[in-house]
Amino acid sequence: MADKSEKTRARLPRGFADRSAEDIRAVEKMMATIRSVYELYGFEPADQPMIEYTDALGKFLPDQDRPNEGVFSFQDDDEQWLSLRYDLTAPTARFVAQNYDKLPKPYRSYRSGWVFRNEKPGPGRFRQFMQFDADTIGTPTGFAGIAADAEMTMMMADVMEALGIPRGQYVIRVNNRKILDGVLDVARVPEEKRLIVLRALDKQDKIGEEGVRLLLGAGRLDESGDFTKGANLDDRAIRYVLAVTQATSVYDLKNRLDQITGETGGVPDPQGGFGHLPYEDALNEMVDGFEPLVRAAGYEADRIQIDFSVVRGLEYYTGPVFEAELLAEIPNDEGQIVRFGSVGGGGRYDGLVSRFRGEPVPATGFSIGVSRLMTALKNLGKLDTSDVIAPVVVLVMDRDMESLIRYQKMVSELRAAGIRSEMYLGGSGVNAQFKYADRRKSRFVVVEGSDERRRRVVQIKDMAEGKSLSSSISDNAMWKEIRPGQFEVPRSKMVSTIKRRLAALAKERARGR
Amino acid sequence: MADKSEKTRARLPRGFADRSAEDIRAVEKMMATIRSVYELYGFEPADQPMIEYTDALGKFLPDQDRPNEGVFSFQDDDEQWLSLRYDLTAPTARFVAQNYDKLPKPYRSYRSGWVFRNEKPGPGRFRQFMQFDADTIGTPTGFAGIAADAEMTMMMADVMEALGIPRGQYVIRVNNRKILDGVLDVARVPEEKRLIVLRALDKQDKIGEEGVRLLLGAGRLDESGDFTKGANLDDRAIRYVLAVTQATSVYDLKNRLDQITGETGGVPDPQGGFGHLPYEDALNEMVDGFEPLVRAAGYEADRIQIDFSVVRGLEYYTGPVFEAELLAEIPNDEGQIVRFGSVGGGGRYDGLVSRFRGEPVPATGFSIGVSRLMTALKNLGKLDTSDVIAPVVVLVMDRDMESLIRYQKMVSELRAAGIRSEMYLGGSGVNAQFKYADRRKSRFVVVEGSDERRRRVVQIKDMAEGKSLSSSISDNAMWKEIRPGQFEVPRSKMVSTIKRRLAALAKERARGR
Repeated sequence: MADKSEKTRARLPRGFADRSAEDIRAVEKMMATIRSVYELYGFEPADQPMIEYTDALGKFLPDQDRPNEGVFSFQDDDEQWLSLRYDLTAPTARFVAQNYDKLPKPYRSYRSGWVFRNEKPGPGRFRQFMQFDADTIGTPTGFAGIAADAEMTMMMADVMEALGIPRGQYVIRVNNRKILDGVLDVARVPEEKRLIVLRALDKQDKIGEEGVRLLLGAGRLDESGDFTKGANLDDRAIRYVLAVTQATSVYDLKNRLDQITGETGGVPDPQGGFGHLPYEDALNEMVDGFEPLVRAAGYEADRIQIDFSVVRGLEYYTGPVFEAELLAEIPNDEGQIVRFGSVGGGGRYDGLVSRFRGEPVPATGFSIGVSRLMTALKNLGKLDTSDVIAPVVVLVMDRDMESLIRYQKMVSELRAAGIRSEMYLGGSGVNAQFKYADRRKSRFVVVEGSDERRRRVVQIKDMAEGKSLSSSISDNAMWKEIRPGQFEVPRSKMVSTIKRRLAALAKERARGR
Repeated sequence: MADKSEKTRARLPRGFADRSAEDIRAVEKMMATIRSVYELYGFEPADQPMIEYTDALGKFLPDQDRPNEGVFSFQDDDEQWLSLRYDLTAPTARFVAQNYDKLPKPYRSYRSGWVFRNEKPGPGRFRQFMQFDADTIGTPTGFAGIAADAEMTMMMADVMEALGIPRGQYVIRVNNRKILDGVLDVARVPEEKRLIVLRALDKQDKIGEEGVRLLLGAGRLDESGDFTKGANLDDRAIRYVLAVTQATSVYDLKNRLDQITGETGGVPDPQGGFGHLPYEDALNEMVDGFEPLVRAAGYEADRIQIDFSVVRGLEYYTGPVFEAELLAEIPNDEGQIVRFGSVGGGGRYDGLVSRFRGEPVPATGFSIGVSRLMTALKNLGKLDTSDVIAPVVVLVMDRDMESLIRYQKMVSELRAAGIRSEMYLGGSGVNAQFKYADRRKSRFVVVEGSDERRRRVVQIKDMAEGKSLSSSISDNAMWKEIRPGQFEVPRSKMVSTIKRRLAALAKERARGR
């Protein structure tokens, strides 16, 4: 035996996690539902590997000294840089560009899988997590492109309802990156400040309108005493930016802008006039194209909403951006009731495939954060995995090979009848074996000692019945006499008895739901 | 538009592959079947992350100059080495060691996922591939341990049959690493030559007995002219090693050894006598324990066979080793008919968990090579995914927003009725749209032009019927007149008509199988 000091310590790097059987089952169930909606919409499964050339993922070659900034990267034998994918969109773009001529166009596909971010992990923030995406690639811009974006948002709404989230408890919020870009143009926000401004706008949920206003200006002191430097926009620009992102409708937006223009003498647009605002096309696209399409298909504002405050962090979006938000108020880990928020999002990314091909290949897609959505569904009680039947456990009362063979035969018979079951394969005594069965959540345990063998019977213990009966028995001797929940059947009736009881249980459970 | 020379090239690193929709569906189907068998045996799903501390995977700290030898490795921010897992067993051992007190013991679990090997890729050899494992950890050695090993092999046999491989077309071959180790002890094969000897024995399928004999001796010149250096064992040791691994039964083995002993005066065992051969315990364990257990459960030698030639390459096995072999003769990529061979294997690995804990934690497990097994099943015609219904395609005849809204409504109605369908979202004309539907393997296409709209009807084209009818029409004008496979229904009957036709098709297909 190795010296204690020489033992390897069993531990995981920060930001990585093992998954429980319950979580795996819940995710499987959830993904099957999502998949069925994607399939209904005509999307086909696709899958790319986890490792790609770093440049194909759209990252610059990593700094030799810090190769793992943001993404996990390493050099191949031929000195080329490889990276673990940080999302599913970049590999999809590479795949479509590589196989463009072979694919039907537009190419509707879906994919799920792990992605990796080499960032500082925190509560609920992992360095490996799962996404479930759908993408439509190769639809020309214009009406067809708008229809492709609209389809994405309708599909997301359908996914939410298929997962059991009632209408009114979720909403798909839609904005257009071109509106935001245009607003920043008009407000003359310089390039280098735009990311700061977008991030500030993205925080409105957490820090409120006043917090955003401070971040657009000089900066903000938070409760912990940390000061975040602001974008230092002038007052008029701040009011202009806030007017657009806080407008509740196109009419409201126009009113707000008129008001600012009236009060301040207007914000001149880059073309030097007010006749054509650079985001007017994008506004019209949303109001005259996107909205009528989804409304005609039966998706009202309680499901799909135009919301000018939606930002989405990623830089590669070029048009509509979407966010699926759960409105349900759910207890968080600290037991506080909070609005759950975003469980996925996406948008139009016209530049990603064309980067490889030198011709325009417009694209739009949506990504679901699998763990986050699963957490929400579990909290909402929508991911019940209690229908999983725990195995019947055949106890090992005698440990000679002859007896083992007999127990093995029992298990084989049960399994042949389709009954999930196992022989106890540990080294412990009878009490510990019952505890094991309890830990496995088994309902039925089979016991055959020498006496039962001689009489050609087995004892079957109903663990649940046993528990409820034992609670009324205080006397140990009486307990042994009664053996609560335990009954005897001929060995030849073992399989049929358990089968009948399990069927009755399943029926009972189905009625209970 | 970017200059051509600036474009990123869309390509994959060697040894990585994209998966087709058909392969993904086939794997899903196969994995669901495997999972159902594992569940029947009482195993629970588990999942570990893809990145672990390098030392936890049992690898030595990689050489700074060649950190990626065999495994993909990289340094974390805190300078510690991380690696992508190269199998599912090492992470499982780490997980069990870390959570030992919380887990039921024995702990039966299954897991599937991608693993990574930084090795030279070749045909059918990838640097990322999928495994599907089952493990039983914490069963004491002795009878319970043998029963755990036996259960693994029976489960593998059940998996093969659940996947539709008929009895007689597969076999689970079982050996014991202790027999091999004991034989090498007796034949006095020095430590440093053992890996060479094991690898030679493992090649018998490919190079035959004579080839193995050469590799145990001076070496072997293959057809391509390459010379492989041998282990340089003396003749007696070679005959001894070959006798054991080529014996067809325990009786045959004893005969062969007697013969060698008689002819050569015997090979002295390390204890200086012949009374107790160091592998006799392992032999007895197989013959008096393992074999009666599986036979009593109904698994005869046509399914589970003791075979002393089974080696399994991995170093960590400490007892029984198993291999699932497909006997079916299947055309390979070059069209040659070959015996398919191994689709998975495993064995007892008593040292892997104890490495972390300093106390014995015996374990046994089995790993299926998912891609390899899928290839075999596809070749055997056992993975039919033709029951997947391709989407109904609604053509876009007019491109104004009003028309798009109408087509979108049709698709929404079809989907609401559970019919997989899509609106054409490309930019091409009618002929190209029909081609698109054909490429998507769609059976039904919906057409509504201005004439149909006015008359409140739609045209439904049955693509398959159209094809078979068109083959008998040579005249183009007549073709346009007849419009083979195309029929008209009132717009209000569109959904019900397609639904009825699809149901009839599904029935027809089910009858055909």
